[in-house]
Amino acid sequence: MGGDHGKQQESGWLSMAGDLTGGASAGKTADAQAPGLSRQVAEFVVASRWESIPEPVRQQAVRSIFNGFGTALGGSRDQAVLRLRASLEPFSSGNDCTVIGHANKIDMPTAAFLNAVAINVFDFDDTHEGTIIHPTAPVAAAVFALAETRVVSGAELLHAFVLGTEVECRLGNAISPGHYDRGWHITSTCGVFGAAVAVGKLLGLNDREMLWALGNASAQSSGLVETLGSMAKSVSVGNAARNGLLAAVMAKHGVEGPLHPLEGPRGFLQVVSEKPDFSALVRGLGETWELTRNMFKPYPCGVVLNPVIDACLSIQASGRIGPDDIETITIVGNPLLKARADRPDVTHGREAQVSAQHAVAVSLLRGSAGIADFSDQAVQSADVLAFRKKVARIDVDPAIPVESVRVQVRTTDGASSEVVIEAATGSPRKPLSNQDLERKFAALAAFGCPDLPPTPLMQRLWMLESELDAADVIRIAAPVAANRH
Amino acid sequence: MGGDHGKQQESGWLSMAGDLTGGASAGKTADAQAPGLSRQVAEFVVASRWESIPEPVRQQAVRSIFNGFGTALGGSRDQAVLRLRASLEPFSSGNDCTVIGHANKIDMPTAAFLNAVAINVFDFDDTHEGTIIHPTAPVAAAVFALAETRVVSGAELLHAFVLGTEVECRLGNAISPGHYDRGWHITSTCGVFGAAVAVGKLLGLNDREMLWALGNASAQSSGLVETLGSMAKSVSVGNAARNGLLAAVMAKHGVEGPLHPLEGPRGFLQVVSEKPDFSALVRGLGETWELTRNMFKPYPCGVVLNPVIDACLSIQASGRIGPDDIETITIVGNPLLKARADRPDVTHGREAQVSAQHAVAVSLLRGSAGIADFSDQAVQSADVLAFRKKVARIDVDPAIPVESVRVQVRTTDGASSEVVIEAATGSPRKPLSNQDLERKFAALAAFGCPDLPPTPLMQRLWMLESELDAADVIRIAAPVAANRH
Repeated sequence: MGGDHGKQQESGWLSMAGDLTGGASAGKTADAQAPGLSRQVAEFVVASRWESIPEPVRQQAVRSIFNGFGTALGGSRDQAVLRLRASLEPFSSGNDCTVIGHANKIDMPTAAFLNAVAINVFDFDDTHEGTIIHPTAPVAAAVFALAETRVVSGAELLHAFVLGTEVECRLGNAISPGHYDRGWHITSTCGVFGAAVAVGKLLGLNDREMLWALGNASAQSSGLVETLGSMAKSVSVGNAARNGLLAAVMAKHGVEGPLHPLEGPRGFLQVVSEKPDFSALVRGLGETWELTRNMFKPYPCGVVLNPVIDACLSIQASGRIGPDDIETITIVGNPLLKARADRPDVTHGREAQVSAQHAVAVSLLRGSAGIADFSDQAVQSADVLAFRKKVARIDVDPAIPVESVRVQVRTTDGASSEVVIEAATGSPRKPLSNQDLERKFAALAAFGCPDLPPTPLMQRLWMLESELDAADVIRIAAPVAANRH
Repeated sequence: MGGDHGKQQESGWLSMAGDLTGGASAGKTADAQAPGLSRQVAEFVVASRWESIPEPVRQQAVRSIFNGFGTALGGSRDQAVLRLRASLEPFSSGNDCTVIGHANKIDMPTAAFLNAVAINVFDFDDTHEGTIIHPTAPVAAAVFALAETRVVSGAELLHAFVLGTEVECRLGNAISPGHYDRGWHITSTCGVFGAAVAVGKLLGLNDREMLWALGNASAQSSGLVETLGSMAKSVSVGNAARNGLLAAVMAKHGVEGPLHPLEGPRGFLQVVSEKPDFSALVRGLGETWELTRNMFKPYPCGVVLNPVIDACLSIQASGRIGPDDIETITIVGNPLLKARADRPDVTHGREAQVSAQHAVAVSLLRGSAGIADFSDQAVQSADVLAFRKKVARIDVDPAIPVESVRVQVRTTDGASSEVVIEAATGSPRKPLSNQDLERKFAALAAFGCPDLPPTPLMQRLWMLESELDAADVIRIAAPVAANRH
């Protein structure tokens, strides 16, 4: 019975028995003899050695964390972060852990929560190709919070981060694209597992405990796409970090989970996906690494706009055509560009993030496309309002890939010119360089946390692998002045 | 775009734009002009007055909380509760709030978590007919935790409890039976909303904030049937109380949610259900009350065994047939009884909860069917092992309803007798009386918390509506001696 009792039930009265017997693994808890995918994943994480992580994966881990610290500084004083801090701070047990960009510390679970929120709040953090998971936010926030409560070396932290993002993104692979399409905020639903195994690795969980950590994470996986565009999105992202961390802590304290939390008939994969690809969880495990498919955004807006902004910034940077010289602009791009971003009359920042007209205006007028250029204030400024009217048309050419664009400018003297972008910055063909990431970082720090000089922190982040105590890095990611909040 | 972008996406690269724009309510947060079911639910909760709650509903609220305190005392020292307390206590910010049955206090969110776990850990708490939600655990735990941090009268607490369970069970109605069948632990997934609106009511949230509380709860709804039978089940039940409470606290601090967290295209109902019955959310709202469909279990086991135990206890109580006189026992019952509970060779307590053979043995041998009678120890005791072999057969008669049974006893002298149970104790036709609830309470208290005299607490619970400070009741639900844990 157990697993199929639900099909037979007709009323609560009948089914109370079922509630006692539970799912397919009714009455059983994990033991060493258990086969199954969850067990394989747990064993892989426990057995993994840093020496077996390839150098490019290590580098991408550092780049991901570097980028995450930058977006966290940028988001650190966003209202979502501040209001969530105000909500949770009364229940913080201590001041062990740093909130990136904040002078005042907080306890471990709350730091994990708030740093995940800050990393992700602008959706300017990293993106895993194929799942659109933002891998770093839940995992990095959790491992750094733990690292401030005990000595964890930079290599140990990076190793845990690699394993956490690996499990997180493989779960995403197994359920994409149906899971997100259905309405699950995949960063949160999968992130809680990533945080759990990463922290579990740092806590030294054994196979059995690591399996319990997965089970305790499965009980806490949540997050809805409906909340995107509101602060409630950040609640699920923060929970992914905090609850994943606690899932591992609970496992360490003997809180037992089911035998098959991932693959069981009422387990994560089958419940949140119509047709999970079970094999995606373990195929090539330890040989291929999901972090190599992690991408970084150059601009805080919809990626369909990346080639458009690249083109406009190159026009602006050339100095040959000034804003006042421009009469009309015509964009020729992939159908998705028009479908998603032909929005001439936007009124606030979030909407501007998917407006080609706004993106053209700020990048040509100001030569920049940063967080400040997509603020409510920027959207409402008179010069931008006037300039975006110069975008005459967005034409569609299905032969143009989404990472490419043609931008045609007609000047007041009657001349025309065209800039062609083949592969936009941030696309798989043209990933951000470390130098690009530094520029992004510095701009975000200046925007969100101007009282923190970013250079020393950037230098330490690049050197993370050689840190004896990884926590020293996050400790310098906050201004020293007290009582700022 | 927004709502349907997921359908178009082909890779993470393409879909990053979508991630910025979110679901159907992209770029919008709740405002006073919003129509929709979520808004209606929020307005109903905010506008509700205690005077409009019918007397039978008030009584059932008191009975539900009474029963919940009893099951919490019974479960208070279960390993799941103790290990979860050990996991979370280091992150408790204070000692404001009582953990039922524990001498040492803890902070508000953790008390909400642990009391919900204790109420539900044995699945001996209440059950809402038609959804199998255990309504009390998440909601009562949350409102009592809040009540210990400010003055809340008994009537105010009961009112919030009624509203919380109403929203919780209506959400369950809208998605049953498909939601649980799919593998969602409905007590947790719906409980977080119940806790949120109940606490929101006590915090005096306005319409807009109450809608945000629903949104913040939607971001945190989790729980899988796969975890039943393991301690990880309790993680989701605890979270439902704690995270629901925090969802309301966040709303009070201005953490904004989406416009349509329940009914939106990527909102709770459509994501966790194939065919949600939207109307179930608001049909007869304020006129019919779900608590009137709340049931209480007489025995800590599958309900199919209730008539069997009733029959055996009546035989035992009659004193006419002793255990040694019995040669064989034949049970004739509904097909579900055989399908779910024909388990002659069980080895541990949880399995015994769905074994007719074990239930017959303990109730005839010992004249009781309480928590202790379904322990691992009871299952392995020699007399029980021997006696359950006397259950010769479980015969099936589809004409017999699941709440009925015929138990035939053949004695060693060759005589036969039969006991017929028409409506088992705890079934809708024969609900537990207040006296039954008191007996259950006293037995649970004696089992789980023998150092607490239960009578004063029971008396205060029955009088809850007239309490000036509801917290005084939970404060006496713990032994006074310090350092017990």
